[in-house]
Amino acid sequence: MSVTAGSPPLDRLKALLAEIADLRHAEFLLDWDSRVSMPRGGADARAQSAATLTRLMHERLVSDEVSGLLEALDGVEEEDDAALVRVARREWERASRVPAELAAEMAHAAGVGVAAWDRAKAASDFDSFAPHLERQLELKHRYIECFPETQTAYDVLLDDYEEGTTTADVLHVFDRLKEELVRLIERRAGDGSPVLHGPFPVEQQQRASRIVLDAFGYDETMWRIDETPHPFASKMGVGDVRLTTHTEEGDLISLFSTMHEFGHGVYEFEIDDAYARSPLGLGTSSAIHESQSRMWENLVGRSPDFWRWFYPQLQPLFPEALGGVEEEAFVRAVNAIRPGPIRGDADEVTYGLHIILRFELEQELLAGTVAVPDLPEVWNARVKEYLGVDVPDDAHGVLQDMHWSIGFFGYFPTYQLGNVVSVQIWERARADLGNLEAQFERGEFGSLREWLRERIYRHGSKYTLRELLTRVTGSELDPEPYLQYLRTKFA
Amino acid sequence: MSVTAGSPPLDRLKALLAEIADLRHAEFLLDWDSRVSMPRGGADARAQSAATLTRLMHERLVSDEVSGLLEALDGVEEEDDAALVRVARREWERASRVPAELAAEMAHAAGVGVAAWDRAKAASDFDSFAPHLERQLELKHRYIECFPETQTAYDVLLDDYEEGTTTADVLHVFDRLKEELVRLIERRAGDGSPVLHGPFPVEQQQRASRIVLDAFGYDETMWRIDETPHPFASKMGVGDVRLTTHTEEGDLISLFSTMHEFGHGVYEFEIDDAYARSPLGLGTSSAIHESQSRMWENLVGRSPDFWRWFYPQLQPLFPEALGGVEEEAFVRAVNAIRPGPIRGDADEVTYGLHIILRFELEQELLAGTVAVPDLPEVWNARVKEYLGVDVPDDAHGVLQDMHWSIGFFGYFPTYQLGNVVSVQIWERARADLGNLEAQFERGEFGSLREWLRERIYRHGSKYTLRELLTRVTGSELDPEPYLQYLRTKFA
Repeated sequence: MSVTAGSPPLDRLKALLAEIADLRHAEFLLDWDSRVSMPRGGADARAQSAATLTRLMHERLVSDEVSGLLEALDGVEEEDDAALVRVARREWERASRVPAELAAEMAHAAGVGVAAWDRAKAASDFDSFAPHLERQLELKHRYIECFPETQTAYDVLLDDYEEGTTTADVLHVFDRLKEELVRLIERRAGDGSPVLHGPFPVEQQQRASRIVLDAFGYDETMWRIDETPHPFASKMGVGDVRLTTHTEEGDLISLFSTMHEFGHGVYEFEIDDAYARSPLGLGTSSAIHESQSRMWENLVGRSPDFWRWFYPQLQPLFPEALGGVEEEAFVRAVNAIRPGPIRGDADEVTYGLHIILRFELEQELLAGTVAVPDLPEVWNARVKEYLGVDVPDDAHGVLQDMHWSIGFFGYFPTYQLGNVVSVQIWERARADLGNLEAQFERGEFGSLREWLRERIYRHGSKYTLRELLTRVTGSELDPEPYLQYLRTKFA
Repeated sequence: MSVTAGSPPLDRLKALLAEIADLRHAEFLLDWDSRVSMPRGGADARAQSAATLTRLMHERLVSDEVSGLLEALDGVEEEDDAALVRVARREWERASRVPAELAAEMAHAAGVGVAAWDRAKAASDFDSFAPHLERQLELKHRYIECFPETQTAYDVLLDDYEEGTTTADVLHVFDRLKEELVRLIERRAGDGSPVLHGPFPVEQQQRASRIVLDAFGYDETMWRIDETPHPFASKMGVGDVRLTTHTEEGDLISLFSTMHEFGHGVYEFEIDDAYARSPLGLGTSSAIHESQSRMWENLVGRSPDFWRWFYPQLQPLFPEALGGVEEEAFVRAVNAIRPGPIRGDADEVTYGLHIILRFELEQELLAGTVAVPDLPEVWNARVKEYLGVDVPDDAHGVLQDMHWSIGFFGYFPTYQLGNVVSVQIWERARADLGNLEAQFERGEFGSLREWLRERIYRHGSKYTLRELLTRVTGSELDPEPYLQYLRTKFA
C-alpha cells in the first residue's frame, strides 16, 4: 500500500505525493461538508481539523526526504514523470517558503472566517465580519513576506492560482477590456431586452438543471449536486465529483450556476485516472478551470442553439412565468446586458467590471490605501462608478462573495482570464467540430465534451496554462478573440 | 496553535493528542460521508484517504516522543491529567503493538468492504461479499497475532471495545441470559399482542422523529439527522453531532432507531468541552454507549409513560394505519415479543439471542470451525434453532449487519452488555429522580438527561466502565437487574 524508504526514488516520491493527495481529498471533504452539511455549531472544531490536516500536508511536502528525491530526480526523462517532478518541485518550492504554522493558521482562519462570513452575509452585517477580514489581510501580509524577491506583493497571491502570471500581465488584459466593456455597456443601456419574472419554483428549477446535467453527461453514481449559499465544485478523488448551486424562486440564475459548476466538475472528472493521487491529478490553473466553467455556462448555456433544444422543455416547467414568453424573447432575456450589484448574476459584459473592481480593491486593501472599516463605502462608490448601480445593502455588496473570508485574494482575476481563454478555446473547438450548433439543437454535447477531454481535461496539471493554450490554440493568452466575440454578440 | 517540542511535557502531550483528535474527527467525517453523501463511485478513493489518515494517526501516536512523554508523566497527580495519561497510555500500548501498515490496511479494507457489503446486501448476494469477509478475517488474525500474550484470540477484539472485559466475562453474563430469554420467549409465544400495519409514510415518520428529538433536546444548530441503510451516530467535534436512521413505510422501526442513535449522540454531545480534542473526549466504552442508546430507545421510548405523551401526537400523523388503534394496544404492539430474522427490528427479549448468535459465530469464524462459504447456511440454521424463525434470504440473514464489513468483530457483545448496564443505571436514576413517569407523560425528559449528563456523559473517558458503574450504581456489571426488569415486564 505504501512504498517504504529505500524504494527507487521515483516510486518513493509517488508514494509520498499519493499520501499528500489522500490528505488533500480529506481536506476537500472537510471544506465541502462545512458548506453543505455541517451544523454551524461545528465550525470551530472543523477549523481545527482543517488546520491540523494542512499542517501535516505541509510538513510532509517540505520534508528533507521530498527535497532529496526531487534533487535525485532532476532530469528524469519520461514525459509524465518529468511533469510530475516539475509540478511537485513547484509545490515544494512554494511550500518550503512558508512555515507550517502559518499554513495551519491560514487554514484555521479560513474555517472560522467562512462561518463568520456566512452569518454576516445573512444579517448584512459587515462590522461582524470586519475582524475576520483584518485577520485575513494580516495573514496575507505574513504570507507575502515569505517571498521577498517578488517585486509586487500581489504577484505572490496571483502566482498561487495562475503560475507565472503577474499583476502586470493581468493589467495588460484588464486595461484593454475595461475600455471596451464600458463602451459596450453604454451602447446597450436601455436596449429594451425583455425581463423574466418568476415565480420559478425551486423544485422545478432543480428538475430543469438535472435535465441539462444529464444531457451534458452527469452520472449519479459518480457525481452529486447540492444547494449552498455560494456555488462551487469539488472532487474528492476518482469517481466522486460534487457540484453545488444556489436556487431562488425569483430568478433562473441557478441553472447557469449549475452549468458553470459542471464545467469545473467535468474538467476534474475527466482527468486521466493514471494521475490519481498525484499533483498531476488536478486542473492545471484557475484560468483554465474558469475557462471551462464559463464555457459551459455562457458559450454553451446561453447560446440560441442550446435553447432551441432546451426551451421547449423548460417552458412547460414554469407555465406561470414562461407560458407567455417566446423562445426568442427568452434567449434575449438571458443574454441581456443589465448592470446589477451581484457578480454571480451578472451578464457576460458587466461581469468583467465586477472582476476588475475586486482586482483593484484587493490591491488597495493590501497596500493599505483602503482600510477595512471604509470598505463598504468604497465598494458602493466603486460599483456606482463602474456599473451605475446603487448597492442596496452589504449582503448585496461587499459581503456577496465568500472568497476573502477564506483568504482567496488573487483569485478573482482568474475568472476574467477564464472568460478570455474560454473564447480562444471555443473558436478552435468550433473550427475542429464544425456543426456544433446543429448538435446543441438536438441536445447533443458529447462531441464537445470529448474534444475538451482529449485536448485539455485528461492532461490534468501536466501542462501549464501557457503550454496548454499553445498546444490547443496555437496562441498565447490573448483578449482579442474574447472582445471580438462580445462585439459580435452585443454591438 | 500547536505546542512545539521543548514545552512542558504535559502541554506537549496534550498538543500531540489534540492533533490526533483532529485527524480522528476528519476520519469520522470520511466515514459519515461515505455512508450518507458519497456517490458510490468514490469508494476506492475514499478507502485510500481513510487508510492514509489512519496510518498518520497511528504513526503520530506510537512515536518515540509520545512514548517519552508518557514515561515522563507517569505519576502526574491532578485527576483529569492522570486520566488523560492513563487513557493515552492505553491507546499507545495497543497501537504500538500494531504495525502502521496493518492499521492502514484495516482502514482500507473497511472502506472497500462496506461498499461491497452495501451492494451485496442490496442484491442479497453473499458470494460477492465473501472475499471481503475472508479479507477481514485474515486481517483480524494478523491483528490478534500482535497480542501474543492474550490467552483467547477473541479477548483481543473485545478489549478494543470494552477495556478489560474478557470472553469469559461475556460468557458468564450471556449463559445466564440465554436460559432466561429462551424461557421468556416460550412463555410468551402466541400471546396475541396486536400487530401494527402500515402504511407509515416516510415523511410523516420523519416528522414524528423530529418531535421526539426536540423533546429530548435536539438542537439543529449542533445536530443533524439523515437516512442511511444502517443507522449510526457520530460526533465530528464540539457542536457537531450527527445521527442517522433508516425509515421504511411498512413499519415504525425508524422511530426507535432514532431514539437509539439519540442515546449515542447525547452521550457524545454532553462530554465536557474541556476534554475536546483529547482522548478523554469520547464515550468511555461501547457497553456504556450502548446502555445509553438502549435506555433512550427502550426504557424511555417503549415506556407507557412516554406513549401517554406521544401517542396522541403520533396517531393523527398516520390516520390510515393508527386511526383505529387505541393507545394501550399500540403500547402492547411496540412491546410485543415477536421473534424475527432482523436484529435491528427485534424486541427487548429476542434481541439478546440475536447478539448471542453473532457472538458465537464470530468466535467460530475466527477459529475456522465455520468456513466463510458455509456461513449463510450455518446462520440460517442457528436462527431457526434460537428463534424458531426462517430466514427468507441473505439480505435478511447473514448480510443484515454492516459490522463485519468494516472489521467490527467483538463489537456485538457490547450491545447486550449495554442492555444489562442500562437497567443498572436506570434503577439508580429512578431512585434518585422519583417522578420520572409523570415527567415523561408531560413530554419532559430534561431531568433524566441532566442526571445522566452530570453522572455519566460529561466525564467522557475519564472513568472506565467499571469505575463509572461503581460510582453511579455502587455495583459491578450484574445481569440480575436486567433479568428482573424483563421478568417484571414480560412474564
